[in-house]
Amino acid sequence: MPTVAILVFPGVQALDVSGPMDVFAEANRFLPREQHYQLEVLGTKRGPIPCSNGLPIMAHRHYSEATEGFDLLLVAGGPELPRMPRDEKLLGWLRDTTTRSGKFGSICNGAFLLAHAGLLDDRQVTTHWNDAPGLAVMFPKIKVDADRIFLQDGNLYTSAGVTAGIDLSLYLLSNDVGPEVSLNVAKRLIVFMQRRGGQSQFSPYLTPYVAETSPASIAQQYVLAHLAEELNVENLATVVAMSPRNFARVFVRDTKITPADFIESARVDAARALLEASSDPLKRVAYRCGFSNANQMRQVFVKRLGVTAMQYRANFAGFQKA
Amino acid sequence: MPTVAILVFPGVQALDVSGPMDVFAEANRFLPREQHYQLEVLGTKRGPIPCSNGLPIMAHRHYSEATEGFDLLLVAGGPELPRMPRDEKLLGWLRDTTTRSGKFGSICNGAFLLAHAGLLDDRQVTTHWNDAPGLAVMFPKIKVDADRIFLQDGNLYTSAGVTAGIDLSLYLLSNDVGPEVSLNVAKRLIVFMQRRGGQSQFSPYLTPYVAETSPASIAQQYVLAHLAEELNVENLATVVAMSPRNFARVFVRDTKITPADFIESARVDAARALLEASSDPLKRVAYRCGFSNANQMRQVFVKRLGVTAMQYRANFAGFQKA
Repeated sequence: MPTVAILVFPGVQALDVSGPMDVFAEANRFLPREQHYQLEVLGTKRGPIPCSNGLPIMAHRHYSEATEGFDLLLVAGGPELPRMPRDEKLLGWLRDTTTRSGKFGSICNGAFLLAHAGLLDDRQVTTHWNDAPGLAVMFPKIKVDADRIFLQDGNLYTSAGVTAGIDLSLYLLSNDVGPEVSLNVAKRLIVFMQRRGGQSQFSPYLTPYVAETSPASIAQQYVLAHLAEELNVENLATVVAMSPRNFARVFVRDTKITPADFIESARVDAARALLEASSDPLKRVAYRCGFSNANQMRQVFVKRLGVTAMQYRANFAGFQKA
Repeated sequence: MPTVAILVFPGVQALDVSGPMDVFAEANRFLPREQHYQLEVLGTKRGPIPCSNGLPIMAHRHYSEATEGFDLLLVAGGPELPRMPRDEKLLGWLRDTTTRSGKFGSICNGAFLLAHAGLLDDRQVTTHWNDAPGLAVMFPKIKVDADRIFLQDGNLYTSAGVTAGIDLSLYLLSNDVGPEVSLNVAKRLIVFMQRRGGQSQFSPYLTPYVAETSPASIAQQYVLAHLAEELNVENLATVVAMSPRNFARVFVRDTKITPADFIESARVDAARALLEASSDPLKRVAYRCGFSNANQMRQVFVKRLGVTAMQYRANFAGFQKA
């Protein structure tokens, strides 16, 4: 019987815990008794542990009582986890227990606990889009990929925020016992088996609004105010009265991206907002955001978000009248 | 401050509880203090309440202590709920409390508790696809719609299985405070704002396999064995040596659907299986299942499942190599 343990702490996100647990528990309905997953929740504290939504849950054991290994050890996340102080005893336990375990991983920003334990160095890792930049800065040895729903690197499995723990668990289940059981569980829980596109489509618009008056920031403001017009290095250079070559050099130095990349990302951000909030036809959205046509907008969306503009609208548009 | 209460019981599905709670708790990050949702879990039992996945949770109060009303009262579901004995005290409390409350509703098969209390009579209701036929049979006065992710009928809100509680909560949130907060919460939890298609796409193949030798069942077996061929009332009548008119009459009497409806549903079921398990081109799937062409298959999928065959494959195909 494969063993699965999930580590929780005060302030844990309830969905990070119940998502994976419900996946493996529902799988047991479709599996012969000897293949049933044995699920256990390990707490960093004894007694009731309050989740971030206020619900108290009870761990089955204090983590320090678990001196064995597990087939799978998952660390849950929580809104405050990235700012919690290091707990050397817990980190030591994590190092020991992952050594004794088959697979291990994290849901959401549970990656920070594994990172503090040094267990993510030199490995490909994903986490909640909101915490990905912080993880990369705090732990420069980790290869953070902020655009994945989940990611496997050897025996390490990390997932994006919150409900992405369900996607990761379905993937682990599919590898363990085959796609049919995994699909049956997905249908019982009413979740899609595979999501379209990466995590970037969930993140908010990243276009930086810079208040300064450097040439780069003046050019950025200009781009944001003239999205529907023709924009390129030449006309931006004219706006800031520099040579195109010098302007491009300064822009890259100050913003870490090229002017063309900034223009495209600003257009995508504007299009996302229109797709979410309006019912304008794709052609008009493309035109208003400065894409040549709907087809070019489609291509840029697929490249940057992994979904077409039409799929993006279907995923994120407001509710129609029920 | 709007009040939200969720009723839980031993064997409750953990995701039915944490989904809605996390939606409203995350919304509080985006709302001014005076608009914060006040969340409370009410238990049918004191002390730790084990979820169906084995996790013990603690209700904030026993339901009988809640003598006030709520802005929203939700009843969670659980795998065993449809088979649990009636609890007249609880049902009386439900009747009283919904009268004192603004909106009320259910997640998953939590609808059975509301139904036992008589609160769903003559109303449009949805529930988990697996429990929808049972609800309709046990409570003939309820108008069960088994193809919805969630459904509003006046101040009553019901949702499909498990994670559909998240969709319903996002919808309630959107109505309360607008689509922007709802979209922000969806992005934090990594869930799509609107799912495509209805609940039918999650249910397993419903094609009945009848072992009997009635004309209807012989015709059904024939259909399943000759999906790729031309099928109609005339050739099925020949198979069972009846006149087309008499065969159609007997088939409808015994199966409650027309031969044409059965043929189409058998073709859709076969196509779903191929789309999930194979990477055959749509054209070949259509041909093997007896559709005239990929475009006709597309139309039938949209009519029956609310999504195209291509979208269905994207949602339910097995994991590609990571």
